[in-house]
Amino acid sequence: MIIVLRPDASQEDLKYIIDRAEKLGLTPHISQGTERTIIGLIGSEDGLRAIPLEAFPGVEKVIPILAPYKLVSREFKKENTVIPINDHLTIGGNKVVVMAGPCAIENEALLLEIGEKVKAAGASILRAGAYKPRTSPYAFQGLGVEGLKILSRVSKKLNIPTITEVMDPRDVEIVAQHTDILQVGARNMQNFNLLKEVGSTKKPVLLKRGLSSTIKELLMSAEYVMASGNHNVMLCERGIRTFEEMTRNTFDVSAIPVIKQLSHLPVIADPSHAAGVWSYVAPLSKAALAAGTDGLIIEVHTKPAEALSDGAQSLLPERLVELMQDLKKIAHAIGRDI
Amino acid sequence: MIIVLRPDASQEDLKYIIDRAEKLGLTPHISQGTERTIIGLIGSEDGLRAIPLEAFPGVEKVIPILAPYKLVSREFKKENTVIPINDHLTIGGNKVVVMAGPCAIENEALLLEIGEKVKAAGASILRAGAYKPRTSPYAFQGLGVEGLKILSRVSKKLNIPTITEVMDPRDVEIVAQHTDILQVGARNMQNFNLLKEVGSTKKPVLLKRGLSSTIKELLMSAEYVMASGNHNVMLCERGIRTFEEMTRNTFDVSAIPVIKQLSHLPVIADPSHAAGVWSYVAPLSKAALAAGTDGLIIEVHTKPAEALSDGAQSLLPERLVELMQDLKKIAHAIGRDI
Amino acid sequence: MIIVLRPDASQEDLKYIIDRAEKLGLTPHISQGTERTIIGLIGSEDGLRAIPLEAFPGVEKVIPILAPYKLVSREFKKENTVIPINDHLTIGGNKVVVMAGPCAIENEALLLEIGEKVKAAGASILRAGAYKPRTSPYAFQGLGVEGLKILSRVSKKLNIPTITEVMDPRDVEIVAQHTDILQVGARNMQNFNLLKEVGSTKKPVLLKRGLSSTIKELLMSAEYVMASGNHNVMLCERGIRTFEEMTRNTFDVSAIPVIKQLSHLPVIADPSHAAGVWSYVAPLSKAALAAGTDGLIIEVHTKPAEALSDGAQSLLPERLVELMQDLKKIAHAIGRDI
Amino acid sequence: MIIVLRPDASQEDLKYIIDRAEKLGLTPHISQGTERTIIGLIGSEDGLRAIPLEAFPGVEKVIPILAPYKLVSREFKKENTVIPINDHLTIGGNKVVVMAGPCAIENEALLLEIGEKVKAAGASILRAGAYKPRTSPYAFQGLGVEGLKILSRVSKKLNIPTITEVMDPRDVEIVAQHTDILQVGARNMQNFNLLKEVGSTKKPVLLKRGLSSTIKELLMSAEYVMASGNHNVMLCERGIRTFEEMTRNTFDVSAIPVIKQLSHLPVIADPSHAAGVWSYVAPLSKAALAAGTDGLIIEVHTKPAEALSDGAQSLLPERLVELMQDLKKIAHAIGRDI
Repeated sequence: MIIVLRPDASQEDLKYIIDRAEKLGLTPHISQGTERTIIGLIGSEDGLRAIPLEAFPGVEKVIPILAPYKLVSREFKKENTVIPINDHLTIGGNKVVVMAGPCAIENEALLLEIGEKVKAAGASILRAGAYKPRTSPYAFQGLGVEGLKILSRVSKKLNIPTITEVMDPRDVEIVAQHTDILQVGARNMQNFNLLKEVGSTKKPVLLKRGLSSTIKELLMSAEYVMASGNHNVMLCERGIRTFEEMTRNTFDVSAIPVIKQLSHLPVIADPSHAAGVWSYVAPLSKAALAAGTDGLIIEVHTKPAEALSDGAQSLLPERLVELMQDLKKIAHAIGRDI
Repeated sequence: MIIVLRPDASQEDLKYIIDRAEKLGLTPHISQGTERTIIGLIGSEDGLRAIPLEAFPGVEKVIPILAPYKLVSREFKKENTVIPINDHLTIGGNKVVVMAGPCAIENEALLLEIGEKVKAAGASILRAGAYKPRTSPYAFQGLGVEGLKILSRVSKKLNIPTITEVMDPRDVEIVAQHTDILQVGARNMQNFNLLKEVGSTKKPVLLKRGLSSTIKELLMSAEYVMASGNHNVMLCERGIRTFEEMTRNTFDVSAIPVIKQLSHLPVIADPSHAAGVWSYVAPLSKAALAAGTDGLIIEVHTKPAEALSDGAQSLLPERLVELMQDLKKIAHAIGRDI
Repeated sequence: MIIVLRPDASQEDLKYIIDRAEKLGLTPHISQGTERTIIGLIGSEDGLRAIPLEAFPGVEKVIPILAPYKLVSREFKKENTVIPINDHLTIGGNKVVVMAGPCAIENEALLLEIGEKVKAAGASILRAGAYKPRTSPYAFQGLGVEGLKILSRVSKKLNIPTITEVMDPRDVEIVAQHTDILQVGARNMQNFNLLKEVGSTKKPVLLKRGLSSTIKELLMSAEYVMASGNHNVMLCERGIRTFEEMTRNTFDVSAIPVIKQLSHLPVIADPSHAAGVWSYVAPLSKAALAAGTDGLIIEVHTKPAEALSDGAQSLLPERLVELMQDLKKIAHAIGRDI
Repeated sequence: MIIVLRPDASQEDLKYIIDRAEKLGLTPHISQGTERTIIGLIGSEDGLRAIPLEAFPGVEKVIPILAPYKLVSREFKKENTVIPINDHLTIGGNKVVVMAGPCAIENEALLLEIGEKVKAAGASILRAGAYKPRTSPYAFQGLGVEGLKILSRVSKKLNIPTITEVMDPRDVEIVAQHTDILQVGARNMQNFNLLKEVGSTKKPVLLKRGLSSTIKELLMSAEYVMASGNHNVMLCERGIRTFEEMTRNTFDVSAIPVIKQLSHLPVIADPSHAAGVWSYVAPLSKAALAAGTDGLIIEVHTKPAEALSDGAQSLLPERLVELMQDLKKIAHAIGRDI
């Protein structure tokens, strides 16, 4: 931690800071510059973070040196985390995993139909929502527990693992019983009680980046889950909010190499929510793959014009087939499986 | 709803749209321009919103005409909503209400001391958090139920109503028992299950705008609370996330007149969280007042350098006293009480 | 300057940095922490800024301590800069100055009519553009030199000083001959050759903040003008670009106190371009005044529906009259003239 | 153009709009909804754009239907524009073109050395700046005309075409004499006089997207160049400004497919300025290629730690060699040359 003093800071201010630092077991190094005095505090920053150093008399600014996360960091664990989904499938290894399916579970026949098609196209995991976070209280909110049961039955019939969103800490247990991967949505990235709750299960968790969250905050939210005991966390880039209006969100492709550098956790890209328009899903998927993503989560619907949500960004199954072929070629070019 | 067709849309595409619109009871008006065909759909947009029109064949874009919210809108209710807090205090009328207090409830003696001072300075409501949403799992998370009890006792001793945050739908009932106003924080603005839960109480709710939420989305979240039966909602502007780094967030002062124009609900400004630095709290408070806010929520601490959270942005009680004097003059100038 | 080394930095890396620092006349202070080594460089940061320290082997990050601007800073000059416009008018003192007028000079009769009305309403300076930066090449681009002549004649007839925009370094001389204040628009805030050119005159300059510029960058652009010899610079907040769509830009009211704290230069607020809608101009003007602005620049037109540009955000003269009355009350409440 | 009336609009307001529309040769279609009246104006939107419809009495909002650009649009020209650079090289065809070189021209020997290496690595065009837009007036501003001469000599010696930035309309002629491609930087994307000036030459122009510019605005700026007579325009995505701090800017990879859909002009990606850190240049280059870019512009320096600008984001030549090998594989996978 570096503390920069204001030009008018007094000796008393300096002494106060040094005293408190020493009480926390830190060693202060003082550098008296011509325009500013700087205090470097050597030792663990953990205790310090709880102290409102900026509010100390004479302090101009406080500059943390170490990252505030531990368990998620590449320094804590050098090798990539590989998460087992079932006996045949892992996420975070050489194989890039494709999760595909409809936005919402609408009924069993439709989910079965779409599930068959995405599996045939090469998807390894079926995605579909039973609980839907909708901006309008009047929009379709998902089938809830009924949807979970459908998902579970379709999963068994097709022998494909599933991912589905959980929005409420009260639902974590039941959702965990019906799916293979728990998804925490962008709007809940800082729903800390939900994070603790999914952290108390052992289920793999896909944590989506919030619309206005920094990568550092995403890592801190993953730290919540890991600190609660669940180390099977994947991080998902799904677009951030900017001023650009041609796409629903701006897909931050840089987040993929940045996260891979800072953390050992797998990264999944969600081109469907980033773009908001199906015609950009293919180029964004390819870009994410080339940039190093460990997986893709893609919305697919057999009848987008009749979908109960997110129709505009859903691919037709035949377009997923084409996309998978293109992705295979790129995966091969970069030395990965898909 | 306006539907713009692509230049290459076929007669079949047009027919499909018209058929589905008519099935929904809408009257389509077709304007055949030189470069585009446009379909205006006359009738209620409510049913339409659930239809993924953008996914229809031949559709280039879809332009909604009416606002997606009803209950919160100025068209639904012309006169300002005035929310009763107790027999002596209302929010949304001519009096601008000041809520002040520490970020977190740390212990009873301190809350009592700060409470006395903010009341003496002219604050009408005591703010203090028992549940703290912290980006780090290792930071102080609040005293929880113990904190609620302290808040309740201090409220009685000082005879001042209180506001405190609720983060988890499971806690709504107990929080509602111990406070006068439920606060839903910025990170939970789209925690829809929490919104429904606070909507099922009759307690006044202060709903904070999310860091990257549009004003329209804030109104939609308020619609969730109102649609669940609770019409006592206040909307709080607390800064949005931008690229500017001199302040923690960018206080969107325009949100105040925009919300007052679109909605009948009271608006509260939170200069402390917007600025993140105590020295900007006074100018932002004055700006918000001049722009038409119905209230201010301000962090105050007697020893910011020892606060367990948000010390850097907390005002000393004596600075609140000065600020209140300045605010009184401006309130008088614009014909309001404070 | 603080240099943080990577955990894997070698002794050689450290030596290389120390050598180069010492060659620049700096004294390195080394703090060996448990996880990172930190080097504090004591001495002038000016020479250092030109060195790509981040590209040095073993360097993780580089943290500048001092501000990169000098002449514009409050540390360089404690007291507020007061800029004389003519024998009767200064900007930056106790009087808040209102600049008003049409977006563009359309013809002499209209400018005269609007000029009379804004002067009667209490504006001290007439604003009007002869060169208009338009996003479309097909839109009205301004009357150019002919417009400057009209502006100059109207200024004399009404005995009111003027402000007008200059967009091209080739036009600085002629614009300076016809106006009292040179305006550099938001899109040209980092047109560095233009900044140097207006810096080579002695005319007062109003420098608008770019749509996505930080306050620090605005100060750096002002530094360009001052470093070129012209110290008569005003800084203008006119809204930044965010995701919010209810206003054309987001008026960053915090910029006013932030700039006043960092710099001695006067601050002017432009509520018209920030809002993009006339109905929000009044509340934003009041907010800016309450937050400490030294001036306002407001678009006014007698026939907004026939204006050649920016009609939607222009006030009718009678609305400016009302606004000035409200502003007078607030100015009085905060101890300023207007 | 669609005009939505306010609920309180009068018959007189409606008549006024219809009259003005008919005078412009437009045919108004009126749709009387239950809550709003909507007017569709059939005919050319060009004349309408100059009219401040939002300022008309009774108007709530105005919704343009057609894009404001013509010459740049895919509707104006269906097939991709292919720009000839010399007898052997074109941009916009199947071959993806790599431009590489140092940020600034520092001296002839160094440019020659770097030029040889990037050519050997497979770059087709040498980039290097003689005029540098620097945020600080105290930073190295480029060698100017002397730099242009060096660039020209090195170009001949190595037999490689060049690209260099022009910042000032007064310099367009001389820069055009010394280089093959004129670059307009992000900060000058809306320097409209510069756009007109480069539009009056026949030199290929690379136009960079501004830090906070929408894709639509980028297209409008290209329209300025084309409307001035120069149709050899390339559009460059180089990162936009967001709240994320791990990269200097956020590389908007979606811009590549969006521009390819809206326009016939070639797209070039600049991963160096987007990332601001050399270690992310490779993954962003691969992502851009996979997303469909027609070219890449990459900063390369033999001694980044001694570069006069942008050292931190410059690749070593040996890293460019590796990157080119990876890019070749991906290009092959997607059916393109590089």
